[in-house]
Amino acid sequence: LIYELYERERPVPPEDYLRVDHESLKAWVRDVFIRLGCSIEDSSIIADVLVSADLMGISSHGVQRVKRYVDGIKAGSVNPKPKVKVVRASGAVAVIDGDSGLGHPTTSLAADLAVEKAKDYGIGLVVIRDSHHFGIAGYYSLKISDKGFIGLTITNSTPLVAYTNTVVKYLGTNPIAVSVPRPQPPPILFDAATSVVPLGKIEIYSKIGKKIPKGWVVGIDGGLLEGDATHILKEVKEGRAAILPLGGVGELLGGHKGSGLAMLIDIFAGVLSGSGWGSHVRYTVSDKPGNVGHAVMALRIDSFMGKEEFYGRIENYVHEIKSLKKHPKAERIWIPGEKAWLTKQTRLRIGIPIHKNVYEELKKISDEIGIPFALKVLKESAY
Amino acid sequence: LIYELYERERPVPPEDYLRVDHESLKAWVRDVFIRLGCSIEDSSIIADVLVSADLMGISSHGVQRVKRYVDGIKAGSVNPKPKVKVVRASGAVAVIDGDSGLGHPTTSLAADLAVEKAKDYGIGLVVIRDSHHFGIAGYYSLKISDKGFIGLTITNSTPLVAYTNTVVKYLGTNPIAVSVPRPQPPPILFDAATSVVPLGKIEIYSKIGKKIPKGWVVGIDGGLLEGDATHILKEVKEGRAAILPLGGVGELLGGHKGSGLAMLIDIFAGVLSGSGWGSHVRYTVSDKPGNVGHAVMALRIDSFMGKEEFYGRIENYVHEIKSLKKHPKAERIWIPGEKAWLTKQTRLRIGIPIHKNVYEELKKISDEIGIPFALKVLKESAY
Repeated sequence: LIYELYERERPVPPEDYLRVDHESLKAWVRDVFIRLGCSIEDSSIIADVLVSADLMGISSHGVQRVKRYVDGIKAGSVNPKPKVKVVRASGAVAVIDGDSGLGHPTTSLAADLAVEKAKDYGIGLVVIRDSHHFGIAGYYSLKISDKGFIGLTITNSTPLVAYTNTVVKYLGTNPIAVSVPRPQPPPILFDAATSVVPLGKIEIYSKIGKKIPKGWVVGIDGGLLEGDATHILKEVKEGRAAILPLGGVGELLGGHKGSGLAMLIDIFAGVLSGSGWGSHVRYTVSDKPGNVGHAVMALRIDSFMGKEEFYGRIENYVHEIKSLKKHPKAERIWIPGEKAWLTKQTRLRIGIPIHKNVYEELKKISDEIGIPFALKVLKESAY
Repeated sequence: LIYELYERERPVPPEDYLRVDHESLKAWVRDVFIRLGCSIEDSSIIADVLVSADLMGISSHGVQRVKRYVDGIKAGSVNPKPKVKVVRASGAVAVIDGDSGLGHPTTSLAADLAVEKAKDYGIGLVVIRDSHHFGIAGYYSLKISDKGFIGLTITNSTPLVAYTNTVVKYLGTNPIAVSVPRPQPPPILFDAATSVVPLGKIEIYSKIGKKIPKGWVVGIDGGLLEGDATHILKEVKEGRAAILPLGGVGELLGGHKGSGLAMLIDIFAGVLSGSGWGSHVRYTVSDKPGNVGHAVMALRIDSFMGKEEFYGRIENYVHEIKSLKKHPKAERIWIPGEKAWLTKQTRLRIGIPIHKNVYEELKKISDEIGIPFALKVLKESAY
């Protein structure tokens, strides 16, 4: 099957980007973490999660995060050799202690365990405490749907979002990702922050000089910030502004719903797991562990109905959504995960666009830790 | 403990309302459904769910729904004597067939079963197919948290909401309700539609002559409707407009997140349960069964950590939220469920305000089916 060439984030202007072969990028990321003391297995998973994000067009969570993780290991807040342990397991649930390692290998393990539980009990839920940033939540849900199960992943994160009727950063952007398998790819993949936008979106707007619309950020005086993204990003980072929950400021358009959902995710992933919550979740680079909490759930479809019947129903659902009357200003009706999937197919073929600044940053990391920087740069495909 | 007198929906103007004692109201609702052929047990549960909604200040889901249910039974779409069956049960999950009865007794049973599963496996998930409207989702989550478990309830519902980038009613307002127990009441209760607002809110605005703000409803031509609530309600009901998902129109403020969440709820409660989804979910009063699907989940807290430890952590969480810097325009920082709780305490003491039109409607039902209409009307308390 050949898919149309599509990228959810086009590299604009193209001359600021290099197209890099994903395999060479993944191999390099893996080598970085091996060099810093992580196991080969853990390093491979970290590399796969990061490069998957870039393939899927979520560059905010891709290899541009390598520096943050490297700095975390150097600062001592990230443990490169965590002793990950299942500290509780009863029936269909389990609790894993991540021992302050990066969240990617631990959550990958948790996804496997959730699937094993779901095989036995129809459902499996694994919560993780004492972890760190784990990249894109969707990766772990996809890992579960690739095995034919329904996957759900949540995490809390460092404080950036104002709880409804408040003006300070307390909640994380606390995303939820659900993946539902289909008889043919792509699976349905819903992966979204419970804030209006993730911080990465403001960072990208800052980088490309785009203006922030009203309704994304609230200032500490209660006013809504709009306009210059670089200024607003600084205000958020320095605590004079906060990202708004999904639904915006106050309750008129449902801001209490977005902030309530973020709070629930914090309760499941943070409070119930034994990890941090709210402002107790720390940034990757710190003098203390991150205290990040995650949770992963798997559902065994044939505990509910025959798999073929389910697949038939899901295909009808998708077909119906695609056949609805389109909004005149919308280009297309999308199924959750479809943009990411098409972007991935495109980038597997023509490579991942890496901004030249990021490329230089990666090269610098490579030089500093002393490993070869042998990314395979591809010719830009004309499409 | 005496709570402050507070009502999330004040009866305005007060002369349009009668204050009714909740016990007499509940007894009357129960008698209505017994008279229509429902069992005493089922009728008691239906009455308890409806009157709970009124007590909690969610009048859109309270006794004003009695007429709809009565009409459903008369039309034959609602089965007053359903043979509710557990059709699949394996490990921690189960599927219940509601046999086209009202959703309240079936979901109440499912909540009990989810708790039993959670006792054995740490988690229990029960999905329900071939059901009808079940009132407020929060009722079943509270039933679970009252037993010391974390409860989650979702349902799909009749098409009212436009999927992102479309302009027609296809999704339901598909709510999610999560209740988390606390050492002392009130429990945390998040109960929210995944649309910007539920239909009931527009109905109330129409009744009290309040204007609809921009961002709640999209017209079939793609424009946003605002202003006269009675007109907009008519447009929605007659299919020339649809309620927007949480996050609003398009993707700028996250409309794809609200519509994605609604779709996920539809997949769990509708597709996976074997019930209807999207536009296949029918209104209560019809010539065919409603085909509504629900799902209820329970989590056993001490499968994750000691209950006292969890309670301590949750209290700290609530205390921290309450201590955040308040938005200057906000009256107060609320914990999810707190408004409903305070309203309930108030109305247990001074009665439930019933609009005179609703009161007359209930009286008419009473006369038609031939049961005494003996609601105990209280004096309006001055507060």
